[in-house]
Amino acid sequence: MIERLNEKIKKTGAPIVVGLDPTLAFVPKFIQDKAFEEFGQTLEGAGEAIWQFNKAIVDAVYDLIPAVKPQVAMYEQFGIPGLIAFKKTIDYCHEKGLIVIGDVKRGDIGSTCEAYAAGHIGKVTIGDKSYCPFDEDFVTVNPYLGSDGIKPFLKACKENDRGIFVLVKTSNPSSGELQDLTTKAEKTIYETVGAMVDQWGSELLHGDYSDVGAVVGATYPEMGAALRKVMPKACILVPGYGAQGGKGADLVHFFNVDGLGAIINSSRGIIAAYKNEKYASYGEAAFADASRAAVLDMKEDIASALAK
Amino acid sequence: MIERLNEKIKKTGAPIVVGLDPTLAFVPKFIQDKAFEEFGQTLEGAGEAIWQFNKAIVDAVYDLIPAVKPQVAMYEQFGIPGLIAFKKTIDYCHEKGLIVIGDVKRGDIGSTCEAYAAGHIGKVTIGDKSYCPFDEDFVTVNPYLGSDGIKPFLKACKENDRGIFVLVKTSNPSSGELQDLTTKAEKTIYETVGAMVDQWGSELLHGDYSDVGAVVGATYPEMGAALRKVMPKACILVPGYGAQGGKGADLVHFFNVDGLGAIINSSRGIIAAYKNEKYASYGEAAFADASRAAVLDMKEDIASALAK
Repeated sequence: MIERLNEKIKKTGAPIVVGLDPTLAFVPKFIQDKAFEEFGQTLEGAGEAIWQFNKAIVDAVYDLIPAVKPQVAMYEQFGIPGLIAFKKTIDYCHEKGLIVIGDVKRGDIGSTCEAYAAGHIGKVTIGDKSYCPFDEDFVTVNPYLGSDGIKPFLKACKENDRGIFVLVKTSNPSSGELQDLTTKAEKTIYETVGAMVDQWGSELLHGDYSDVGAVVGATYPEMGAALRKVMPKACILVPGYGAQGGKGADLVHFFNVDGLGAIINSSRGIIAAYKNEKYASYGEAAFADASRAAVLDMKEDIASALAK
Repeated sequence: MIERLNEKIKKTGAPIVVGLDPTLAFVPKFIQDKAFEEFGQTLEGAGEAIWQFNKAIVDAVYDLIPAVKPQVAMYEQFGIPGLIAFKKTIDYCHEKGLIVIGDVKRGDIGSTCEAYAAGHIGKVTIGDKSYCPFDEDFVTVNPYLGSDGIKPFLKACKENDRGIFVLVKTSNPSSGELQDLTTKAEKTIYETVGAMVDQWGSELLHGDYSDVGAVVGATYPEMGAALRKVMPKACILVPGYGAQGGKGADLVHFFNVDGLGAIINSSRGIIAAYKNEKYASYGEAAFADASRAAVLDMKEDIASALAK
């Protein structure tokens, strides 16, 4: 799967993933009103509103980018109807030729971990039939439980040509509370996990890159540079650009010299661009055009940083 | 919420939680056949089968135990229909007076973490209305992202009288790869997280116990004893009894002298008891009675270990 992602990055010239993380506060009133008219102010109404919002944004940006990253929490908050919107979004993005990174941050052990892998990037068998329930191309995975929590995902990656991004150094202010602790082996926890990612990924190499990638926050550029060396074959999924404070110039060292090896996520900065002063002239009605403009600006910001 | 759990533990005399982690392999053929007849060999058919299986087990054991712990992965593997079965199971267990611990192991940051908290143990606002989408009483939470990944859950606990169990030392063989590493401060990662649990919990005390509990595997009894002291106010949710190898005698040091402070989970050992040689005489038709017998035996095993 990583070679498909890299191909699409090269084709679009945009190492960018749009985070489809809708909250109702981002959804223009006219979309909410229409959804609530049909379904009431219910979970179903909210599910319909975020789905229509996503659809409009995908229609406006799909030709510019290789991938999207729906954050499942934003759907799970609306219960079953929210998860129906999550699934519709995945399927629609596939129709549009986009790679889908399910930001699910799952992590468990044994048969439970197998179940997560089957549900998101694998197949489940029911009698004589088999199904791909959520059918993402990549998912994010939490490493706290050690390799027992990763190996079932590796197996699913192999069997179904999918990929994972393992949380290594997250973008949030408190990520250091555990991740930055230094062990007696003189390695931080994030370096330790980075080395594991490199090892797990060695089983799933396709050319210079592995189906096992890593999440490293844009907000920690020095650590990104260090981790780039620890896991040379891993594609780094980089959250924290834009709303969380990361800038194009911070991102240079997340990439390899071939210009690949990193994909930068922006969520609010793209999907709620119309609420940003810079794109306010689009107005609520043209919110999706504002998102397109924000993608083009982000592409330019990253390209010019990489060109230096 | 913790005082409600402790009350129910005292009333039933059983510090036991039944893990409702159904796989199709555990569901008797007559239940599968009926579900597939109605819905086909589909995700809907699987969802119906696991829901009917759960219902029969809950009917057979609800008067013996304080709580159940559905593991969401086992439902997520069947996509939306699986999650509908998850929600039906939660609601039915509430009808039967059981406390529901959603084993979701979620963990994320900022607005994303708030969304998970709202969806599982909080409320989501849609226009003028508000809803409790999944409506568990407790959820399990992953600490890898630090306090940013916990605080939104603490807020939801306060506002809605709910609780969480933070993963500290998990029951699986590879849990030590990260959790047992010793930092330069001469503390292991699991002790570090244990101390955080104690601190997070100090805001949510009800008498001797806090709404912030911890997960520590039965398979690591010495660490359980050490962690008992690090987090004296935390209720410890203990997986790994039975199928994973933990025995009643291993569990004594997870408890405080008041006989509270721990709740022991068994999943396969209870719900698939009829597949165990010991309870095979019940046969497939009486699978739920086998589960009841297994709960009674587990209760006796733990009570006799604690009486020593």
